Parts: sequence; C-alpha cells; structure tokens
Amino acid sequence: MTHHITEGEAAALLMAADNILLLAHQYPDGDTIGSNYALCLALRTLGKQVRVLCGDPIPERYEYMIEGVEMPDFEPAFICAVDVADPTLLGSAVEAEYGSRVDLCIDHHSTNVGYAAATCVDADCAAAAMVVMRIIRLLGVDLTPAMASCLYTGIATDSGCFKYLNTDANTHRMAADCIEAGAPVEMINRTQFDVKSRARIELERLALKGMEFHHNGRVAVMAVTAEMIAHSGATENDLEGMTPIPRQIEGVWVGITLRQKEDGNYKISVRTGHHADATAICGLLGGGGHIRAAGCSVDGTLEEAKAAILDATERAIPCIGKY
Amino acid sequence: MTHHITEGEAAALLMAADNILLLAHQYPDGDTIGSNYALCLALRTLGKQVRVLCGDPIPERYEYMIEGVEMPDFEPAFICAVDVADPTLLGSAVEAEYGSRVDLCIDHHSTNVGYAAATCVDADCAAAAMVVMRIIRLLGVDLTPAMASCLYTGIATDSGCFKYLNTDANTHRMAADCIEAGAPVEMINRTQFDVKSRARIELERLALKGMEFHHNGRVAVMAVTAEMIAHSGATENDLEGMTPIPRQIEGVWVGITLRQKEDGNYKISVRTGHHADATAICGLLGGGGHIRAAGCSVDGTLEEAKAAILDATERAIPCIGKY
Repeated sequence: MTHHITEGEAAALLMAADNILLLAHQYPDGDTIGSNYALCLALRTLGKQVRVLCGDPIPERYEYMIEGVEMPDFEPAFICAVDVADPTLLGSAVEAEYGSRVDLCIDHHSTNVGYAAATCVDADCAAAAMVVMRIIRLLGVDLTPAMASCLYTGIATDSGCFKYLNTDANTHRMAADCIEAGAPVEMINRTQFDVKSRARIELERLALKGMEFHHNGRVAVMAVTAEMIAHSGATENDLEGMTPIPRQIEGVWVGITLRQKEDGNYKISVRTGHHADATAICGLLGGGGHIRAAGCSVDGTLEEAKAAILDATERAIPCIGKY
Repeated sequence: MTHHITEGEAAALLMAADNILLLAHQYPDGDTIGSNYALCLALRTLGKQVRVLCGDPIPERYEYMIEGVEMPDFEPAFICAVDVADPTLLGSAVEAEYGSRVDLCIDHHSTNVGYAAATCVDADCAAAAMVVMRIIRLLGVDLTPAMASCLYTGIATDSGCFKYLNTDANTHRMAADCIEAGAPVEMINRTQFDVKSRARIELERLALKGMEFHHNGRVAVMAVTAEMIAHSGATENDLEGMTPIPRQIEGVWVGITLRQKEDGNYKISVRTGHHADATAICGLLGGGGHIRAAGCSVDGTLEEAKAAILDATERAIPCIGKY
C-alpha cells in the first residue's frame, strides 16, 4: 500500500533527498519529459545531484527541452517517478531495475496503481506538469525560462492545446505563469501543434483522396499505404497524428485509419466519439486500448483489412448507420 | 481625426448612451461576433436597448452565440463598431448607412484607421473580445455564461486556440475567467477547432493539390477557386480556417491563401512567422491587418493575383528566399 501525500509533503521529501533519479514513462510524450526535466532543473538549483531516465529515446520534437541538460552518472539514493501511473509503463528494463523501489510518484492519472512508497496524485490536473509546477513553487524555486518551457510543453500537449475536456481555468492560469516566466511559446506551439512537413501535407492529400464513408457517414475509413508513404517521402515522424483525421469529420462516430506496415499487413487505429466504444471494435480483432482510441492489426490486403474492421464495427455497434 | 480614448472612457460613453447599434465586420469571424454579442448582452443588463448588425449572414458554426438573442428594431442614437479597423470592412451597404457616423470604435487592430468619433484600441490584445471584456467589467456587469461563451469564442478563435504569436499570459488569464464564468468550452472548442465537414475535407484536398512553393520554400501559396468550392460543395462555413494552412508547412515564413470571390476576383490572406510582417506585404496592395495575419484584395485572374502578392512579398521582404 502506498502512502498518499500532499504536494507540500512531496516537496519536503524532495528537499530532504539527494542523488535523485527521476523516471519518465516509455513512449515519452511532452508531459512526462516536460515534468521530469522541469523538476530536474529545479532540484539542481537547490544544489542536488539529479538525473532523468527514460526507457525510450526522446523524440526529436522534444529536443529543445533536453538539449544541453547533462545527465551525470551516480548511484541513486532517492527514486521519483513523474507521470507514470503504473511501473509497467517504465518499460521492461527500467521497471526491472527500479520499478519496485520508487520512493515517490508524482502524477495526475486517476488510475495510478499506487506502486511507490509515497504517491502525490492530483487527477484534476490536465498534466503532471501542473502538479510539478506547484511542487517547484513549494520548494521555493523561481521558474527559469528553461523550466517554464518544459512545464508549458507538458500542460499544452496533455491538454490538447487547451482543447481537451481536462482543460479548466487553472490550466490556462498555469500556462499564463509559464509564459510570464519566459517559456518560448511561439516555438513550442509551432513545434508541437503547427508544423507539418511538405511530405506530410502530400501524404494527407493522398490519404484524403481515398477516404471512404460507410453507414450514412457514421464511419470514415482512411488508408495510408506503403505506396503513399513512399510517394510522399514521409518519414516515421510525419506519420504521427494522422489517426485523428477521419473522426474529425462532421457526423463521424467511428474514424478508422489503416496503416500498412513494412510486412505489407495493416495496423488499424480506431477513434470514436461518445456514441461508440473503440475497444469493443478492436477487441473483436484481438486489439485493445481506451474507450475513445484503440487499435489492432489485421493480416491481408487493404481490402481484406477494411472488410475485417468494418465487419467488427458493425458487430460491436449494431445500430451504426441507423442514425 | 478620431479621439483616442481609454477603456474607462469607452465604458463611460456606453454607460451614457441608449438605443445602441453595434456593428460587426463583414465575413464575420468568431471575434467580431463574440465581442459584439457579449457587449450587446452586457449593455442589455443595464436596461439599454441594443442590437448587433452584421453586413453578412452569421455562419452556422457561430450560431450558439446568436441563438435566442432577439434583435429589436429601433432608431439608433449611438453607433459602436467592434473589431472593425476600417469602415470599408462593414460591407458596402452597412458602410453607406453608418460608416461615416460611428460614435465609438472598440478594436484591437494596430491598423485601425481612426474613422470613429472616439476610438478605443488595444493592439496588444489577441482579440477584440479581450478589450470588450475589460469594458464590460468597467461597466460593472458580471459575466453571464452567455457573455463568457461569446468572449471565450473571440479569444480562442483570434488567438488560433492559444497558438498564435499574439497569445500572452493575459490571453490565457482572460480565457480562464471565461471558463470560470461558465463558458461551455468543450462545445466551443469542438465546434471551432475540431469538426470538419466532408465538403471541407474535399476542398482541402483540392487546394493542397495546387499548393506552390517559392523562394526556397519560404513562401507557400494556396488557391481556393470558385471551381474548387463548387466541386467540393463547400459552404461559407467550410471556408473558414483554410488560411493558416500554408504557413503550417515546415520552413514557411509567409503563407498565402488566395480565395476567389463571387465577382471572380481574389481576396488574399497572408500569415507570417516572426521573420516577416504581413501588414507590410498586404499594405503594398492596399490591405492591412495584424503583423502576423493580414489581408488584401486583388482584381484579376488567379495568375495575376498570385503575381501581385508574390511581387508584394518580395518588395516587403527583400531577403526572402535568401535563407
């Protein structure tokens, strides 16, 4: 059983600690990187030795947060996971080494499993960066532009640029504080939300051209084939963020994206609105995920993969197309 | 010559007035509608007779702001334009009737031509709705959810959902205040930023197909012709929000969108990054706007309009393409 503590108690634990290892989750996103790096920089201003560990490489789009931040090697005396709801999310190597001896977990997931000795969770926060920002204040550390840059990135990315349901007045106010502390928001917003490569634009155009609608427009299906990827010159980086497109179309309940893998078969992503359960659809094909975003894989041609996922959609949501 | 006044003086003018006609600009957007309707609702709580006039129909996506707000007929005794930098932007019919007798203009455009008897401009505000929000407070009116909904829409749309350069700490703090006052932000964000019609998707595809790059990829030009609009089935509503697309492409400093008007000529929108001044470009063709987003009109064929705006771009930014 973990001990649930306040932000003030979390700050006190960190204040008393040194040789601190901070842990980010695998498949790192803006919030786990931003909140870990901001906390690392803040603790260093207190003279502590701190480093951040992530089980996966940090994607290029987050490089501005980690650039120039050296990671010294030392034997950790205090282990703190940030934005990690479950030790399995550390990735198997990091989990094996540190998963069972986390001293403190700082998080914003209501689903946090309570694996750390002490857990500080605020599920009302849109981002772990918001919890970290309050702890940094409680540590008496003034935000530097570099910390503000990390925190703003966490807040903006985890709130879908202030569009997701988790965004409240507090989310905006903390973003305002980051801007005042010198976060380079123009660069961050452009990097995280705005910039598309020419290859990506071309890939979108090709994929949109083949978009299909089924069941009175309630289901939209978009394929991203190996041929389209090759023709557009898109890289892995360009492929990110294609999956929400079909569901953004007016009237669509189920948005399906089929992406051809290197072996020729298809990885399928399903996004749903509040009328439909994505896990129910993907579960029929051996996949899983969240209620509004799930995935599965289907072997075969594009036509076979499409037929399989449309069949699964009809079986999971028999009423689809009747509205 | 107009008289430049503070927000407090603008509030005093409105407080002393009655039978107030508020004017929005043509091709109405979220900010002109949101700021006019919020001010209308606020003035009505003070017992005043107020109505809003816009030279164009209000697009469907803004209906939630105007629904149920009756517009009584009366002889206006005080005329106030909101978010209208130049009387020509009222549209010819409204301009002919009221353009020369505007008592007060409330605006956030640095290019405001000073056509009203009194002008209250704050060019540091991302949206006219922010200026209006402060005037509403100075009037001593508490924000209702309906006013907050209008103001949030103005702030969020004119700041590109808090992504444009005009976004600062104040923008976020005023959005936070709107959320606390009951603005239905989930619905607003989905309506303004997330949902696209099938016609819009098809129109994007057609426009992307003809996208051109100039000056080493620093300038991107996208045309939206009457033929594309007709072929896609896009309505006025679908056309909004196309203008940011060219500048979203990696490496682009100047993003240009040419939209064919009903008379066959072109309305041009220019969006720029921090390397380039959009008003300098559009000013050469008789247009204006903000430093990062400006517009102008050019008579002629698509090729002529393209040549004119590319020439203006080169003249305004001689170094373009040298990087």
